[in-house]
This record gives sequence, C-alpha cells and structure tokens, in this order.
Amino acid sequence: MAEVKPYNMCWLEYTDLSKYKNKYIKVFENVVVLGGNELNLPLKELKNFLTFSLNIKPKIFKNTLVKGRNYVLIGRLIEIKKIFKESERFEKLLNDEGFIIKRIDIDGNKVLIITAKSYNGIVYGIFNLIERLKRGEDIENIDIVSNPSLRFRMLNHWDNLDGSIERGYAGKSIFFRENKILINERTKDYARLLSSIGVNGVVINNVNVKKKEVELITPSYLKKIGELSKIFSAYGIKIYLSINFASPIYLGGLNTADPLDKRVAVWWKAKVDEIYEYVPDFGGFLVKADSEFNPGPHMYGRTHADGANMLGEALESYGGFVIWRAFVYNCLQDWRDTNTDRAKAAYENFKPLDGKFSENVIVQIKYGPMDFQVREPVNPLFGGLEHTNQILELQITQEYTGQQIHLCYLGTLWKEVLDFDTYAKGEGSKVKEILKGNVFDLKNNGMAGVSNVGDDINWTGHDLAQANLYTFGALSWNPDERIEEVVKRWIELTFGDNEKVIKNISYMLLSSHKAYEKYTTPLGLGWMVNPGHHYGPNPEGYEYSKWGTYHRANYEAIGVDRSSRGTGYTLQYHSPWREIYDNIETCPEELLLFFHRVPYNYKLKSGKTLIQTYYDLHFEGVEEAEEIRKKWIELKGEIEDKIYERVLNRLDIQIEHAKEWRDVINTYFFRRTGIPDEKGRKIYP
Amino acid sequence: MAEVKPYNMCWLEYTDLSKYKNKYIKVFENVVVLGGNELNLPLKELKNFLTFSLNIKPKIFKNTLVKGRNYVLIGRLIEIKKIFKESERFEKLLNDEGFIIKRIDIDGNKVLIITAKSYNGIVYGIFNLIERLKRGEDIENIDIVSNPSLRFRMLNHWDNLDGSIERGYAGKSIFFRENKILINERTKDYARLLSSIGVNGVVINNVNVKKKEVELITPSYLKKIGELSKIFSAYGIKIYLSINFASPIYLGGLNTADPLDKRVAVWWKAKVDEIYEYVPDFGGFLVKADSEFNPGPHMYGRTHADGANMLGEALESYGGFVIWRAFVYNCLQDWRDTNTDRAKAAYENFKPLDGKFSENVIVQIKYGPMDFQVREPVNPLFGGLEHTNQILELQITQEYTGQQIHLCYLGTLWKEVLDFDTYAKGEGSKVKEILKGNVFDLKNNGMAGVSNVGDDINWTGHDLAQANLYTFGALSWNPDERIEEVVKRWIELTFGDNEKVIKNISYMLLSSHKAYEKYTTPLGLGWMVNPGHHYGPNPEGYEYSKWGTYHRANYEAIGVDRSSRGTGYTLQYHSPWREIYDNIETCPEELLLFFHRVPYNYKLKSGKTLIQTYYDLHFEGVEEAEEIRKKWIELKGEIEDKIYERVLNRLDIQIEHAKEWRDVINTYFFRRTGIPDEKGRKIYP
Repeated sequence: MAEVKPYNMCWLEYTDLSKYKNKYIKVFENVVVLGGNELNLPLKELKNFLTFSLNIKPKIFKNTLVKGRNYVLIGRLIEIKKIFKESERFEKLLNDEGFIIKRIDIDGNKVLIITAKSYNGIVYGIFNLIERLKRGEDIENIDIVSNPSLRFRMLNHWDNLDGSIERGYAGKSIFFRENKILINERTKDYARLLSSIGVNGVVINNVNVKKKEVELITPSYLKKIGELSKIFSAYGIKIYLSINFASPIYLGGLNTADPLDKRVAVWWKAKVDEIYEYVPDFGGFLVKADSEFNPGPHMYGRTHADGANMLGEALESYGGFVIWRAFVYNCLQDWRDTNTDRAKAAYENFKPLDGKFSENVIVQIKYGPMDFQVREPVNPLFGGLEHTNQILELQITQEYTGQQIHLCYLGTLWKEVLDFDTYAKGEGSKVKEILKGNVFDLKNNGMAGVSNVGDDINWTGHDLAQANLYTFGALSWNPDERIEEVVKRWIELTFGDNEKVIKNISYMLLSSHKAYEKYTTPLGLGWMVNPGHHYGPNPEGYEYSKWGTYHRANYEAIGVDRSSRGTGYTLQYHSPWREIYDNIETCPEELLLFFHRVPYNYKLKSGKTLIQTYYDLHFEGVEEAEEIRKKWIELKGEIEDKIYERVLNRLDIQIEHAKEWRDVINTYFFRRTGIPDEKGRKIYP
Repeated sequence: MAEVKPYNMCWLEYTDLSKYKNKYIKVFENVVVLGGNELNLPLKELKNFLTFSLNIKPKIFKNTLVKGRNYVLIGRLIEIKKIFKESERFEKLLNDEGFIIKRIDIDGNKVLIITAKSYNGIVYGIFNLIERLKRGEDIENIDIVSNPSLRFRMLNHWDNLDGSIERGYAGKSIFFRENKILINERTKDYARLLSSIGVNGVVINNVNVKKKEVELITPSYLKKIGELSKIFSAYGIKIYLSINFASPIYLGGLNTADPLDKRVAVWWKAKVDEIYEYVPDFGGFLVKADSEFNPGPHMYGRTHADGANMLGEALESYGGFVIWRAFVYNCLQDWRDTNTDRAKAAYENFKPLDGKFSENVIVQIKYGPMDFQVREPVNPLFGGLEHTNQILELQITQEYTGQQIHLCYLGTLWKEVLDFDTYAKGEGSKVKEILKGNVFDLKNNGMAGVSNVGDDINWTGHDLAQANLYTFGALSWNPDERIEEVVKRWIELTFGDNEKVIKNISYMLLSSHKAYEKYTTPLGLGWMVNPGHHYGPNPEGYEYSKWGTYHRANYEAIGVDRSSRGTGYTLQYHSPWREIYDNIETCPEELLLFFHRVPYNYKLKSGKTLIQTYYDLHFEGVEEAEEIRKKWIELKGEIEDKIYERVLNRLDIQIEHAKEWRDVINTYFFRRTGIPDEKGRKIYP
C-alpha cells in the first residue's frame, strides 16, 4: 500500500486499479533500464504506480537485456540507439523534451520502449504512460510521439516569505513559512504533480519583491534554494526567482540600480555567479519592473530593454533567462483624465522596444490588456511583437474569477486566447502559433500560469480547481488539444471512469466560466469588484481610483470608447480586428463594453436593449450556476464523501454569491435608469 | 535648560518665557508644601516650569511655613485647613477632583494657595496654574475654583500589541511594540500631557481584542501593566483594559463564557483578583461585545446587562468599573433588506435594558447612531436611557474626518453634540447636563475620546491635530466652556501670544470642520468613503456591503427615509425632535439626507435644488480649504520653521484631496442625473 498522505495527490493519486492488473501484467513483468542510476527516479515513479495501483511488481534489470520475454525498455535515445538500430529514425521525431512510447517486436518479444533525447523527456514519458495506464488505455500496440509545443511551461508563485500568498485561495505557501524556506515531503510531491503535466519551470516567489524577499538571492537563502532546486531538477523543473530591480542598492550598497552603470552590471554578474554556485540548475529571473511601485530602469531614464538585457548578459553564460513582465501601466492615473487608457499601456511600452531584447530575454504578457478579467480581448502585443520572445501569462489562481469559492474552469477561456488569430502575418497567425515559433522566428516562448496552489488538503482550495492546474499543463504542452478531451482526461484521472461522473463534471467545468461571466460582468465590462481583495460585486468600487479601470457609467450609457474615435486602443490590432473592434456593429458582443461606450437602450443583435440583455444574462447566469450545482448533487454516492461535501459546500456558497452578483448588478443598472425588467423579475430598488 | 526631547511636548513645551520673570518672581520665590513626599511630583512639575520657562528658582519648604515673605502654599485641603481656618469653607466648593487656586493674605504676606481634596485635584491645580503662567495671566489676585463636570474623562487607545493602531494616523503605538509593553520616557510624558488636560482614565488597548491581546490580563503582561499604571497613577490616571468577553474560554480553559454560568463568574472574579494584585490602581474593563465579530453574552442567549453586571460584580469590591459599548448592530446586513436600519440598532439593543445595569457599569455611546461620520444626529440613546450610567464616545482620531492629513478641528462638532437638547425631561435636557448628572440621578458618566496619538514627533501626525486632543480634555472637564476660548488657549499655549497667530489659527481651526463637511458628504449624507481604510471618496464603496450604511441613490433621489413613514428611526427621539426630524420641511438641512430620501430636484430653503446645493457646497468647501491654507501661509516666519513646513505640507495635500472629493462627488451626482451646474463650473463627465 502507498503511504497515506495528509493531502490528496490529485490526478496522481494511487487509486486501486487492480481491475486492470490482468490487462497489463504481461507488459510490465520485466523492466529494463539503460544507463546509470540517473533514471532511478522516473523508474521509481513507474514502479510505485504499478505496485500501488495495479498490484504489479516488475522485475528490474539494469543495462541487461532480458531474452525470451516481453519487457519494458526505458532509456535515453542515445542508449536505445546502441542496441536497437531502428530507433535511429526517432531522432527526427523528437525535440529536446519530447518522448516516444512505442511497443515493438525485438527478437520475437514485445518490447515497450520509453525513450527521449533528454532526461526531462524520459520523465514526461513515464508520467504520460502512467496516465494511460490509469485510464485503462489499451497499450498492446501503443505508438506515441509527443513533443511539447512550447519551450517554457512555467508556474509563477506569488508566494511571500512569511507564508502568505498574494491572490492565493488555497491556504498558505508550500514554499515559505515565517521567513524560511520550507522543504518537506510535500515539496517533492508538488514537483511530481508539476512534472506529470509537463511544467519545466517554477518561479517560487511573488513578483512583488518586497523587503525580506529581496534577500532571497543572498547566501542565507540560496543554500536552501539549492536544495529545493535539486528536488525539482530531478523532475525536470528549473527554479526561478523573482527579483527586485533595485537589489544593487538594497543588497549591494550601491547608490544606483541604473542598468547602464557599470558597477550595477558588475554587481549583477557577481550575484549571478554566486547564485549558480549554490543553485547550478538555476533557471533565471522573473522581473516586475516599473510596475505598481516596483523599481525599474525607468527610474534612471533607461528602457525595459536596457534593464532586461543587462540582467540577460549576467545570466547568459549559464544558459539562464530573464523573464520580463509587460504588465506596465500608470497606476496613479487620475480618473478625471480621459485621454490615458490603461488598456493601451503594455503595447505603448513594449512595441517600440521590439527587437531590442537579447536572445535570453523573454517578455511575459498577460492574456489581456488589463488584468485577468473574466473576459478581455487578447493583448495586442501578441502579434504586435515580431522580434521578441514571448510568454503568455495566465492566471490559474482565480483572482477575478471567484477565488476558488466559485467553480470557474478556465480552460475554455485559455483555449479561446490560444486560438485567437492575430493576423500578424495574415490568417493563421494564432497566439498559439506565435508561441510555438511558427509565426515569427523565435523559439524561446511559452506559457506561465500564476499558481492556484497552497497547503490546503486538496492543494487548490476547490477540489475542482485542480482541473485548472492540470489544464494549464496540458495546454502548455499542446495548445492544439481539444479542451473537452483535456477535461475528460482530468476527470478520469481524478475520479475514475464512471460515465455519469465524467458526463456531469464535464458539463460543470465546461459551462462554468460562461456562467460566472454572465452573473458577474458580461459583455466585456469587467472590474465591478470590491477593491483590494477583488471578491464580490462593487459596481463603482474602482470608478474613482488610481488604477485606470473605469466604466464611466452615467444615466444614459456605460463603457469606455476605445475605438479610433475614442482612446484609439483598437488601432493596436492588426486588420481585420482593428476594423471589427472599431465598429460597434461588428464588434463581438462578448467584448462590446470593452471597446465601446454603449447607451442602455442600444439594441443588440438579438433585438434586445443593452439593459435588458444585462438583466437577462444575470438571471441566466444564476440559473446556470444552479444547474451546475444540480449536476454535482446527482453524483452523490459516486464521489468520495469528503470531496463531495467539500465541493457541495462551495457550490452552495457560489449560488448565494451568484445571486448577490446578479442582484447588485441588476440593481445598479436599474437605479441608473429606472428601466424595469421586461419580464418582471425581481430587481431590488 | 530643559532636556531636548525627540518629540515636542505640545502645550506643555517649556518655551522661553523669561519675559514674564519679573511679573511672577515675587509670587514664586518661596514654595511651601504640606504633607509628606506624596506631592513631590506635582511640585516638580511646577518647579520645572518655573525653572525652564521663567528662569525662576523657588526655595522649597516642606511642612514649614515661611514668615515675613510671600509664598506659594501647596497642600491637600485637609492639611491646609489645619493651618488656615478660613479654608474650611473651601470644603463645599470642591468636588472630589476639583481644585482651588487663590491668593490671600496670611499674616500680612501674600500666599498663593493651591489646594484640593484629592491628590488628583492638586495635580490638576498645578497644571492649571502652569497654563495660566504660560499665558502670562495676571495672578496677583487670582481666585479660582475649578471642578470637573464629568466624573469619567477617558482616552481610548485602539492600539494593538504589535504596535499598530487601528485607525491610527500618527505613527506607531506608544504603548506596545512587537507584542511587548513599552515603557520609556515618553510614557511619562504622555501621562503628563493627559493629566494636564484633566484626563483621569486611559484604556491602553484596542476594543477589538484579538488573539494575542486576549493575554493582556495574564501575569505575563500584568506585571508591566502594573509598572505602567504606577506612572499614570502618579498623574491621577487609571489604566483600563479592553477585554475579550470569551476570555474564560481562551484563557480559562472553560467551554463557555456564559455570564450566568457560575464557573464563568468565578473565573472572572479570580481574574480580577489577580489583576488588582499586579495593578492596584486598575480602573476596570472596556468591553466591545456582540459587535463586529467580537464575542458577547448574546452567544449564550443572555443580555448585555447579564454580561456587564457579571463583570461588574467581579470588579465591585475594588471600586473598578465596567464600560460597555453600545456600538452594537447587525454587521452582516443584506443591502436588499430595506427594513433593517443600522441607525436604530443601538437604541433597539439598549433601551430595553435601561435600569438593568449595575451601578459600576457604564454604557459607552458613540455620539451618533452610525459611526463617527462628519455629521450625524445625536444618538437617541442620550435622553433615551434614563437609568443607566453613560459615557459619550467621541473620536479624536480622524477616521472619517481626514485622518490627520486634512485639518479638521472637531471641537465645534463636539460642542454641538454636548449642547444638543434631548428634551428627555423637557427643555434643558442637554447631553452635557445628562453627563453632568443634572437630568437623571446618575453620576458615573463621562466622555471617552478615541486617541489620535502615536509615536510621531508631534504625537498627532498633523501638528494642529493636537488641538483636538487638548479640546477633548477641556470639554470633558467643562463642557460649558466656549469653544473659541478653548481654541485660543490652546494656540497661546502651543504657539505663544502673537496676535496674528492666534487670529489666523483660530480661524483655521474653527472653520475647518465645516469646510471638510462641505467638500465631502454634507447634508448628513456621510459614508461615501473608500471601504476599509475610510480615506478619500468612493460614493458607492459601501452601497452593497454588509455594513448597513447605504444611501440607495438612484436616477431621481438619494438618501434613506428614516421618518415614521420609512424605517421609523425618528421615533426614537423625544418630542419635539421626533416631529422636527420626521418632516422634510422642518428637518435641519444639515441632516436632511440622514433622515429623508430626497429627490435631486427638491428645493431647499434657499430656493436651490438639492443637486445645485450639493454642487455649490462642494465648490465652497474647496474654496474654504484654500482660505484656511492662505491663513497659514500668512504665518510664515511667525511659526517655527519645521512646524510651519510640516503643516503646510499637509495643507497642500488637503487641498489636492479636497478637490478630488469635490470632483468625485460632483461627478457622481452629475452622472446620475445629467443636470449641469447652474454656474457652469467644471464638473468632469
């Protein structure tokens, strides 16, 4: 039996699958591993799964081929090629981190080969195989080649040294506690979870690097980070750190952090040398500079490129990377100023620097131009930047999407973002193709997800929010995968193969984002949240603030005109989007209030007015949330009691809070206009 | 020379007053003190002042009358009577804490007597004399009898053990730091400041008693609190503690805090015994129970009286008091519920308990029914409670009144509150008369002010906010004093006798509350602040929250109908207020939007519509703030540079933020209605 842990292992849980024992036993009786001890760890993953879930105890052979029997053959391609000529053709099929799982005949025996060019590839191959076994897949004649489409598949933790997590909704940090770095059994299990979904980089600390966190790049912390890195490296994951751009001042005693000042560059070079001494597998830096009160090169009249390239140079000889966030805007805006448009800021800041960043610098861009609202247009920097490495930043943690109290599966939204065609080089210039390197000749691209993980028993607060983490991994490996397929796989891995469970949870997940959108701020409105914590409705909470997120509703209209006649944001897009968005008649209605200022009595394509549509969507949204809850109740008895109750409890709260959203927003619109609901439903006065 | 302190001593600063030396020297050459060493401390206060400010070094005689010379005679009345027959008639003139300062002839010599029944009285007399000397008052024939009108003159500190202060705007706590109690030179100086304005009680910790603070009544803290109490007792001030009603559970290991459970009462009795062992001068408990998530007797189906009386019994034999806050309301209100009215809560909770509280229990009532808004009607519990000891709670700290960034002198508001006639027993039943014990036969009344003090160099953040602290003391000693007189005295003590300084600062202080009211939320509206920190405008920040503070503005009207036709709040008042407030035509306009829901086009007495009045007031408010700033600028050169700059800096920010208030509120009303300003001034769209 596998040990009982004080937390569940999500899709990696060793459930009892002895029903498949007979199906698989002939394949796995013998396992041959080529190479030294370096593959011990992936081998152990396979062995543990076979033992604990399938009750199969394979015989292990190291560097010894077994004759006259079926066996599994695990080894890096360079080893496999030595003993099995045909495998030379695998060379072309694989990229650096891809793997092959293939069952072939060798000397009359059936051999299941798991191979890859790199260690990472082997690890991914093993986890992939485990997934297939867990789902009872037929592997008699398996023949799989799988390569990750994106080079960087990263998680960003907004964890603070004191153990708190900015925008964290699943307990405390699994990395930090009371200004110390935590390393325990859970550390390794987290590495296993991430590795199993193909993640190859983790930024462990918050992008807002405050006082104590500045010291993470000093020896007092680096030793422990080195230990942490060893654990993660064993699963193919590099550790990155968020840094404070003014570190040369805070830590180095310099009076400047000017990236063009030689002393600063020298200081960083020495600092990087020191980091790699402690953390040989170090991935690099994530930098939030000149953004929301974090220091940056602008303080010295330098550009983001100046700042990033200086750091890049320090990291270059180690193969390290600088990931530089494009989330830069004026966060001290005056609401009275109607010329400034926060939506335009990232493009305005970074487009002029396109081509000026070094090769080991990557610009990390939030999916939309604002900040992870339930719906935004895709950031025009995608397609706008043609000569710059890019990482798409997504928020797995549900800051604006219900904070893991509401069920809000994000895969559907992410998929739409990835599939968005920027038309940068004509049709087909989809975001995902840019990230793959198929549109511009740039390969150091990827996806970063802000983690939704904490030390809660289920890692993610809401048990079903595990699906968001899993999906992030799946899409960053293969953005072309059908989202329904990802959802189904996650359900099967997590809850087993019960048809009804698969059907109902699929429904719940796939309809949840739309429902959340409807009962909160649909049609691209966004932002009507309580300031600060961002949970729950507050229609004018941000209306007069410094943050540049206004809807400027008055007695007759709502929304900001971002067309060419307004702030001109639409001009940041390529044609035909530029024209489509610019025209209120052609603008997709789901983004109508993002791009246009719209009178309440404006008629949408349905023939209904804006205000009636808003009422309708809010009533519908609650009904859909209730439907989602009903689907879960149908599963009583089919799901482990504890999980069933935990999720039901959150769904109950979700319904209550969805109604609050509905009523607040409807009342807000009603109080503005005095226009009643055509259908006479309850709108509070 | 007096030592130079790292903070200023406000109105007690030893300024150079040697210009008065000749005037006073003949009075103060000899000082006779009667009694043992117990008067050493007030004597030293006098001596230090004479030495450091007047350069007079008196000869001190202890229990020895000097013959043939003028002298000062300090002693408790019981001592004075022994040697000076005539003083027997003083007996009737003095209450427990009052004092007499009188210059008389004894055997042909002029003797300045300072006497009182109690030690406190002597201390107050000395400080009062110092004030007079500092202002250069003629004391040749001084003849003063002064008694405090109110028995309890308290400061409440909302200080937390970690050194933070809830609603504190003047630095960190002077009582706590990093979970320890601070005792240093400043502790004593704070006691001196409070004593000099007649304060006789200080609650040192926040009414919200959270985890660590619960332990303040355990020996690990009580020893230090004993030391603190000694320092304060020497200045006539008792230390009180805020307690958590569930302490028997947290500290006593009981499974209940039910006030009618014998084990609970026994636990509290033993706890009180323990406290007095460490702190023999202990004043008693301040309790926030069943309020904003603090535990209380309601948890056990008991009343506030049950809870308070149980504690009262434990304290009784020591002469300790229970101060029980009336700030109880439903803080989980649903905005959709229009029947519940937070304004009614205190009365509804406490009126039925009138007469049920023990003699050593005092109910502490915020001045208004909501929460320290810039203007509220006077809490109807004043006049409502006829058989209950009462403390009027005021906020010296400027939570809703500009947080010591804005100049907002509160004495004018407090004076209006004290002068409010409740008509409880017909005309003349003013709040101040109730507190004095002249309306109902209850003497254990008083005033409590939430402190505005922290460890800033000037104690109060804004230098001119010292005036609020000073005024609180002055009014709690004598609520009949003219506010202009208090202001003038404070200015003279703080800035000297420069006519222009007195004139300009008087103007600034006396006009500041009105100006603040105008540019924020006049006509009794209130609450349009940012949630949480309560600084700056946010017209709908609280509109859909749980806190019960709604204005329910729509396209045609704003405000809550609290008349007999609405929530019925007006019915909590005695006639004629009940009728006056109930009628929109007779309701004082400064409270119009508190009591009534008013259409924007409603015509006020001026003939102007509500909306035009709102616009006008906001433009006026900023103009008045600018005028206030101008008055300060006129004082350049007349005020110590550092103070001048500090205050100017805050006035600059005030103007900027006043404009923000003006523009946000005007825009909010404009967006609601589309009605432009009649005078065509700038209102942002």
